[in-house]
Amino acid sequence: MSQTPVVELPAAVDVINIGLPLFESALRDQGRPVIGVDWRIPGGGEARTVAALSRLLGPQAARIDQANAEVLRRLNDGVPLLVGIDRAGAVIPGMGERDILHCGPSIAWQDMPDPLQRSVRAAVVAEGWAPDVEAAGQLVESGDVRLAPANEHRTVVPMATSIGPSAPVYVVQNELGGVTAYSSINQGSGAVQWFGVDSDAAIDRIRFVRDKVGPVLAEALSNHGPVDAFALAAQGVPMGDDVHMRVQATTNLFLRDLLPYLVRGTHPATAEVATFLSGNHLMFLNVAMAAAKSLVEWAGEVRESSIVTTMARNGTTYGVRLAGSGDDWFLAPSPPIQDALYYPGFGPETSAPDIGDSAVLELVGLGGPAAANSPAVAGFLGGRMSHAIAATRSMQRICAGESPRFRLPILDNVGTPVGVDVRKVVELGITPAVNTGIIHATAGTGQVGAGVAWAPIECFTDALLDLDRRLAPDA
Amino acid sequence: MSQTPVVELPAAVDVINIGLPLFESALRDQGRPVIGVDWRIPGGGEARTVAALSRLLGPQAARIDQANAEVLRRLNDGVPLLVGIDRAGAVIPGMGERDILHCGPSIAWQDMPDPLQRSVRAAVVAEGWAPDVEAAGQLVESGDVRLAPANEHRTVVPMATSIGPSAPVYVVQNELGGVTAYSSINQGSGAVQWFGVDSDAAIDRIRFVRDKVGPVLAEALSNHGPVDAFALAAQGVPMGDDVHMRVQATTNLFLRDLLPYLVRGTHPATAEVATFLSGNHLMFLNVAMAAAKSLVEWAGEVRESSIVTTMARNGTTYGVRLAGSGDDWFLAPSPPIQDALYYPGFGPETSAPDIGDSAVLELVGLGGPAAANSPAVAGFLGGRMSHAIAATRSMQRICAGESPRFRLPILDNVGTPVGVDVRKVVELGITPAVNTGIIHATAGTGQVGAGVAWAPIECFTDALLDLDRRLAPDA
Repeated sequence: MSQTPVVELPAAVDVINIGLPLFESALRDQGRPVIGVDWRIPGGGEARTVAALSRLLGPQAARIDQANAEVLRRLNDGVPLLVGIDRAGAVIPGMGERDILHCGPSIAWQDMPDPLQRSVRAAVVAEGWAPDVEAAGQLVESGDVRLAPANEHRTVVPMATSIGPSAPVYVVQNELGGVTAYSSINQGSGAVQWFGVDSDAAIDRIRFVRDKVGPVLAEALSNHGPVDAFALAAQGVPMGDDVHMRVQATTNLFLRDLLPYLVRGTHPATAEVATFLSGNHLMFLNVAMAAAKSLVEWAGEVRESSIVTTMARNGTTYGVRLAGSGDDWFLAPSPPIQDALYYPGFGPETSAPDIGDSAVLELVGLGGPAAANSPAVAGFLGGRMSHAIAATRSMQRICAGESPRFRLPILDNVGTPVGVDVRKVVELGITPAVNTGIIHATAGTGQVGAGVAWAPIECFTDALLDLDRRLAPDA
Repeated sequence: MSQTPVVELPAAVDVINIGLPLFESALRDQGRPVIGVDWRIPGGGEARTVAALSRLLGPQAARIDQANAEVLRRLNDGVPLLVGIDRAGAVIPGMGERDILHCGPSIAWQDMPDPLQRSVRAAVVAEGWAPDVEAAGQLVESGDVRLAPANEHRTVVPMATSIGPSAPVYVVQNELGGVTAYSSINQGSGAVQWFGVDSDAAIDRIRFVRDKVGPVLAEALSNHGPVDAFALAAQGVPMGDDVHMRVQATTNLFLRDLLPYLVRGTHPATAEVATFLSGNHLMFLNVAMAAAKSLVEWAGEVRESSIVTTMARNGTTYGVRLAGSGDDWFLAPSPPIQDALYYPGFGPETSAPDIGDSAVLELVGLGGPAAANSPAVAGFLGGRMSHAIAATRSMQRICAGESPRFRLPILDNVGTPVGVDVRKVVELGITPAVNTGIIHATAGTGQVGAGVAWAPIECFTDALLDLDRRLAPDA
């Protein structure tokens, strides 16, 4: 007689959970041993993206890796030197005398978010093109002022900054790459244009920076000689700077170097400017940004690379470009800032979306990649250094290499991750973590907090698809 | 019939090794599981010491703990303010016009180590009491100059420093404690007296500090107003300073605060001094020491405490005092510096023993207690942050409390250990780890390295026995 087979359930089961952790969590709750594997469907499971990924990580991988190696060399070997300060309109390539350069990708006046419109109006008034911000707005609407992305003119500006031709800019030379890049001078805290404020005080600050800070710093720098920007940043990282959200240690090293030249300054505003510098712990931010820009511009000339060399936001759109993708930007809506601390009375509902060009720092091993060693950044992520380390770890997963100059003592001096590889971003669904400030969405009242913004995946996916098209045999 | 009992050896043995790790190591080498318990015979097993410990940790413990709580309150609550710079002979209590104050416990001229003799000779020449160092030596030998420990005059001086009455000193007020303390002004690097150099250049530097650095800093401080020394140090610790061996971040914060006042300086030497300040990353060391001294002097007035409030070395002897032990020092030979990095061509054989008053910092939560967060200190201990953390952990084991102001991000913002308890030191056989510089033993050529010195146990044992005597019912 046939016997019904008996299925014996084993007394104990060892479980490995791959992907969504629901099953894993349930087992853990029941006190059962379980190993969780963090796995997601690559490319979000979208067929076209998965096919592109298969090619770019398969047959095209060697070709891309070769290009990426050259991109990494350029990002890591270039030595950006701050050589001076000059008038934007006089030195920035392609900047005209009726131009305003703004943060982020190209955007029409009417599409700019409130903080950036205020910033442009304030810049127009500071230039003397309009008597007040209302008239400035009308002038821009009339088309009499050309608006252009700073990023397309070898320039980067933080937060909602915009600059006219009379603005003083840092001039940073990457001699190895033959690239000179620029950034505005930091305006400090309070009612300031770079936080989207267009009050009289904010306009006065623009003029103060132009008429006093610029000339005083220019004289001090000229007497000091070129400043190796990333040599200072490399000292700042072990001192707790991510050199993006927190720049205090590097700023102080910079000021200490300039001290003898400021004391010897002959400009009548030297004392007033010294007081301003002493109170502005973000002073070095813009220098670091110009330095980073001088590297990514050079790296951007490499063709067929999957590494991101532009990452910038205008508060409405988030844009990326790859090395070799030329003038084409890949865009997505600018996201809110996720992990954030707000000043009392403010919150996500009153905050503008992610804005500014400072994410260029995250492309060269600073900001998010350097979060691990920064107690100040940890403060925005939950308070423990383990939280900051997690931010760096997530960047390690999507980067192609590491920095030989920016090192993390807390991780046994490993170099910070460098070279955001769009293939890894799209495969893992992990976008760069950008440490950033938060400004009010509409009130023109400036900064309301700071936090960490994760870039939107869509622009990276589009950049990947474009790379796949460019590498196709019949392309 | 009786049966011979059979002892069955178990198939597997779990071992806990208590004390000397020889057995533990042997088992580990054989791949056997073993738990090691770090235990030593308390007080080195010396009967008199063990008996004293039994009383001080037993029947007398409550009385001592009460005193220690008051000592900790004073060490942690006092707010040392740097209020100015003045002439040593004019402000240091009990300092006469023919006095030289030196580091460490009291010591006769002939017993001073070579670097301290050189230092005293250089100070005598700088005072104008002798035309050259040879004549200065004869003058001191003749008894015409009084030598006294700075520590007994509310003053602390780093390394082999000695000061005459014309030296400018930092004046630090602890208003809560009604204590004012003093320290010399740091002389910077190179051929300098505080590293035991008596060359013409070193004597010139003493005069430069007296005639230029002192007056310029005094003017800047006067215009700035009081500086909260430990508020700056509390910012410096998360920036990688232990505020002893590494003081760069705190020095830069200090200079940034003074910047506007230095730029406005009217003293003719302001520019020259600014160049000196810009190049001296140890500038804040002496300020921190005076601040620490203003706290331990106050705490030292508490009676019947087991907490160390003086720890200083003259290069020949190492001396400690407890809160309540009054003018009595407990002495031991000054040890070599154990964990050290040397300049090329130098080593332990050419190095002077541990010297200077800077160990006062280790009594208030800086230096060794703050090592954990300092990549620079880690560099002297093996390179990894885990090595620096171990130094802090060893201080945690022998301290009675922790600092509410100096916090260690790498250890989830725990306060640094404060209040070295001589009972724990003697019970565990663990002495304080002091982060310090190393100078040449005989050549008068200055610094040859830096490292971590462990204090000798003997002076702590003697201090413990004295406390036991003082607390005895019939005492």
